[in-house]
Parts: sequence; structure tokens; C-alpha cells
Amino acid sequence: MELNIILKNISSLENILNSEAVEDMINRILKANRIFIFGVGRSGYVGRCFAMRLIHLGLKAYFVGETVTPAYKKEDLLILISGSGKTEAVINVAKKAKKINNNIIAVVCKYGDLHKLADLTITLDVKKSNYLPLGTAFEEKAMIFFDLIVAELMKRLNKSEDDLLNEHCNLL
Amino acid sequence: MELNIILKNISSLENILNSEAVEDMINRILKANRIFIFGVGRSGYVGRCFAMRLIHLGLKAYFVGETVTPAYKKEDLLILISGSGKTEAVINVAKKAKKINNNIIAVVCKYGDLHKLADLTITLDVKKSNYLPLGTAFEEKAMIFFDLIVAELMKRLNKSEDDLLNEHCNLL
Amino acid sequence: MELNIILKNISSLENILNSEAVEDMINRILKANRIFIFGVGRSGYVGRCFAMRLIHLGLKAYFVGETVTPAYKKEDLLILISGSGKTEAVINVAKKAKKINNNIIAVVCKYGDLHKLADLTITLDVKKSNYLPLGTAFEEKAMIFFDLIVAELMKRLNKSEDDLLNEHCNLL
Amino acid sequence: MELNIILKNISSLENILNSEAVEDMINRILKANRIFIFGVGRSGYVGRCFAMRLIHLGLKAYFVGETVTPAYKKEDLLILISGSGKTEAVINVAKKAKKINNNIIAVVCKYGDLHKLADLTITLDVKKSNYLPLGTAFEEKAMIFFDLIVAELMKRLNKSEDDLLNEHCNLL
Repeated sequence: MELNIILKNISSLENILNSEAVEDMINRILKANRIFIFGVGRSGYVGRCFAMRLIHLGLKAYFVGETVTPAYKKEDLLILISGSGKTEAVINVAKKAKKINNNIIAVVCKYGDLHKLADLTITLDVKKSNYLPLGTAFEEKAMIFFDLIVAELMKRLNKSEDDLLNEHCNLL
Repeated sequence: MELNIILKNISSLENILNSEAVEDMINRILKANRIFIFGVGRSGYVGRCFAMRLIHLGLKAYFVGETVTPAYKKEDLLILISGSGKTEAVINVAKKAKKINNNIIAVVCKYGDLHKLADLTITLDVKKSNYLPLGTAFEEKAMIFFDLIVAELMKRLNKSEDDLLNEHCNLL
Repeated sequence: MELNIILKNISSLENILNSEAVEDMINRILKANRIFIFGVGRSGYVGRCFAMRLIHLGLKAYFVGETVTPAYKKEDLLILISGSGKTEAVINVAKKAKKINNNIIAVVCKYGDLHKLADLTITLDVKKSNYLPLGTAFEEKAMIFFDLIVAELMKRLNKSEDDLLNEHCNLL
Repeated sequence: MELNIILKNISSLENILNSEAVEDMINRILKANRIFIFGVGRSGYVGRCFAMRLIHLGLKAYFVGETVTPAYKKEDLLILISGSGKTEAVINVAKKAKKINNNIIAVVCKYGDLHKLADLTITLDVKKSNYLPLGTAFEEKAMIFFDLIVAELMKRLNKSEDDLLNEHCNLL
């Protein structure tokens, strides 16, 4: 039963993929000097999965709070992930970035407060269930959403799987 | 098009959910003193998403390599995630654990070498595509797979969403 | 020259080790149900080094923001590390913890704002130099400070090096 | 008493700072395209502290296993940290890098097996004590050692504290 809800949530991504918002997001990613990503908890792990693929694509990406993340500058892009749109640690990062530029994308399930700080908000709404607790349904949909963005970036950047493999961690 | 492949991959989880292997996995989780999880890269982030939910369920879980992970002992369970079944860092962890007990679960896409060290292997096979590069299709399916295990654990442990919220990080 | 400054900074720890504040800190650690630690950047890595030793000592310790960190509860202790005493992410964690209990220790170089939220503040002041940039001198002193706390905890808990080794990560 | 041992261990860094080995290390850092760093446990946190400062210096640095770490290539440098020189996870990384280039630096307390894979080995020997358990004395000395390397790099790169601040994380 949970599986059916999950499948419905994910299949509804079809509607969003050709939206103007997603086109705007892709263009911002391609134009940015560097892409900074942040989220807390499982949303953060979804964000890290995306950041890793951006690196494989040959783009410059960082996850806020990790060792080698440099200062955020005017030409950079910030992508924030929060199901509730209310995670305070995420909002605080948005506030700091807002002083530097107007290039903040929020990927949320509910508007919360984050959308007020974001320059572009992508809403991934989901049907929940008692046994897809807390942000589960959103996090799953967000994971697939970002993978589909990667697919689109591969096409636009004309990258093959081998190109990605060539940038993949080779020491572990 | 990628979305269709993803949906097919995930919907095929239905077959595995009622398998003896998954029943064995759930019983090992419920019986273990502590559950250790490991994977590299995006598989590692999928594993961390699962570890986090085990904590919310009130179980004792650790991700190998993180700050507070203690010594692995006889009564513990190790769950390893590797699409190729060949990730060396994962195999090395398996070898070390194998000297301590016979309670190692491998969640893989292909058998690789990992299944030889594992006491139980769950295979999540996927259809790939050029634009679901490297382990993408497996990682997505593994993410949903573990979330469905969480759903099942909630039922068996008689836990509500509020119970999980009560153990959820409250300082960020 | 930098080495001399570092040595002076560290040797001044002698004065603080027998202070009432440190005695208070040790007692809070021994009495707490679980010890939560947080800091950002290099202070965070110093904190993780300490958290790891607490685990080796057989205590229950967590680093805020890591995978398996559960909800902070009344009987827990929070130790925050910030050279400036002004790191916003640290202050935000303090604010959230303050609603739950009055058991917050701040380890700082300068008072900043953090001490207002802390129930106990340990000040590690340092002489700086142009070539010990940013928080370097503080972070070094904090690293040694926490190691000396570990030494004291070993004595009070009657733990040997072998006891610690027995809890040390054995899968990597 | 532990404090005295620590101070002696650290003060002995004076002898090594002007050694040919350290001069070689600094030149390799300045010449490398990118600097990859790895260590396990507390040695890993010391390595991350160093990686962070390399970023602040405007160099390209990565910690192996983190989200945005790309493939290791011929023109890169690998710095490994292991007190025992025997940590298997570290040795496995060295073996993989060895197939790519001969630019591996080992920072160790004891030779172990790591020095056989390294192209340059820096030995930081320490006096231990019962209450500086496991790698404590080495990790402290390594932390200060790397900070002194940072001091030297600042001088050679003609960088001020403000230059470093300009690259420092500004979103937390």
C-alpha cells in the first residue's frame, strides 16, 4: 500500500518536469559559477546525492557545512531543500545568502517560510501515509526529482555515462 | 522516459517485499543489539537515510566511519549497500566484520564479490538508461526499499509517526 | 615563532585544569544521560574528536547534525564550541536546547553572545599571530583541553587504554 | 603531567620544521593541481582541519570520501594521516592512488606499512602516557604540525588573515 502511494507521488513528477520553474532552475545551474546545496537530515542526504552528481558532470558544487566548502559569492547559486519549508537551520542559511545575491532556489513540499527568502521555489507535493512518516514521501520524490534534473543536465551538457565515471571518486 | 524506467524499477519492489529474504532481514534487525550500516558515495547516503529512521524508531543504529560509531560486536548486525557488489571499501568492512560474527546483510544490484561475505543478500535489480548514470537506478530503488522496511518495522514495533517525531533531531 | 605562541597558549591550560568551572564540567559529563556536542568548521572537528573519545570511554555521546543523533532531552548535556562565541549556527542550537534544559556548556575564546545562553562557560583565551589565522590558536588549545578532560575522565571512571581500545571502531 | 608530555611532544616539532622532508612537502603542495587528504577517525578530523585551511588559502583541496571529492588524477597530491601507519582503510586508499601517480605523502607516528606506499613520509614521533590513550599524542602533534605548514604556506603565498577570511564559509 505504501508502495502505491510512493509510485503515485513519483509519477506526478511528470507534470513538473516541463514547467517554467524547472527550466529556470536548470538555467540557473548552468549559468552559476558554483552551486551550493544545503538541507538538514534526510533532505541533506538527498542534496548530497545531487551535489555528487553535479561534480560527476564536471560542475563546481559544494554542500554547505562540509570541509572544503568555500565562501558563497555573488556569482554562485544556492539550492535549499526542506520538506516543511520551516527548518530553521535552512532558513538561517537562506538569510545569510540573501545578503550576497538573489539566486536562491528552494525545493520544498510546503511553502513554509523558506519561499519568502527564495528567488525560485519548486514545490513537490506528496500524498502521505501513516507509514511514510515525517518527510519520507517528500524526500523520496526529491531524490528522484534531482536525478531527473541530472538526466536533463547530461543531455544539455552532452555528457555520457563514461564522462561521469571519469570524475567519479576512484580512491575508495 | 527516465521517469518511466524509474517507476518500473520501483514498482518491482512489490515482488521482493514478501520474500523470505526480506522477512529474514527484518527479523535480524529486530533481534540485533545494534545495527551498523555502511556504503560509499550515494549508496552511503541512502544508508544514512535508513540509519536515521532506525534511530527514530528507537533502535540503536550507527553508520560506519561516523564520529560516535563504537566497536562492532558479536550481537550486532551489519547492513552493507553496494550497487556493483564490488566497492572495495565496502568489501573491506565486510571482511573485518566477518571475523566477529555471521550477521552481515548485503543489499546489492549485482552479486559482485560482496555476496560471498554476506550471510544474507538482497538483490535489487534494475533496468538502466543512459541518463540514469552509474548506480542511479539502484540507489533510487534502495532508498524506497529501505523506506518500505521502515514502514514494516513501524507496524511490528507498533510505532506511530509521533513516536518517531519524538526521537527526531530537535536542535537544528 | 608561531610554535612558541602555540606552546604558551597550551601551557596556560595548567591554570584552568583545576578550576571550579572545569570541575563543574566534568561532573556534568559524568551525570548526564547523554552528551551532545556541536561546533562549526574546525571547532566542530575538535568537538568530534572529543565525542569520539567519550564513546571510547563508554559514555553516550552524539555530534549534532550527524546521522544517528537523536532528540535532545531534559537529562542530556550540550557542549558547544565557538572561538568567537558568535557563530550563529551554534547560537541557534543553544537557543533550541535552552527550551529543553539548563545544561549547556560553552567552550569559547571570547564571550560573544553564546555565554548568555550557556549555564557554564569555559574561556580559553589565546595569544594570536598573523600566521595563526582566524580561530587557529583557539582550536589548538581547545583540542588539547578536551584531551586533558578525557585524561581526567579516564582516571575517575577507572578506565585503561585497553578499555578504550575495546570500544574503538574496528571495521576500518 | 599529561600536559607536560603534550608540550614536549609539540615543542619537538621545531626540529622537523626546517627539514628537507617538510620542504619537499610544501613544494609538493604548492605544485599540485589539487590536494587530496585522507585519514580515519581523529586523524581524519585533523586532516579535515588542514583541508579547510588549504581552501581558505585559495588552494584546491578535498577530503577523500566527502560529497564533492572528484576523481584523483595524475597531477594531484595525496596526503595520508595514520598514527600507526597501519590503518587499513588508509592503506587501501594509498594502493589505489599509487596506480595513478607517485605523489603520496604519509604523515605517521610509526612507519607501519604505509611508508612503503608513500613517496614521502613525515614521521611525528611522540612520548605517550596511559592517559593520552591510543593515537591522542600523535593526533595533537599532527594538528599543530599542519597548522605550522599553513603558517609557512601563508608566507610563501603572501596571504594575509583577511585573504583567508575572504574564502571562509559565510553561510553558517
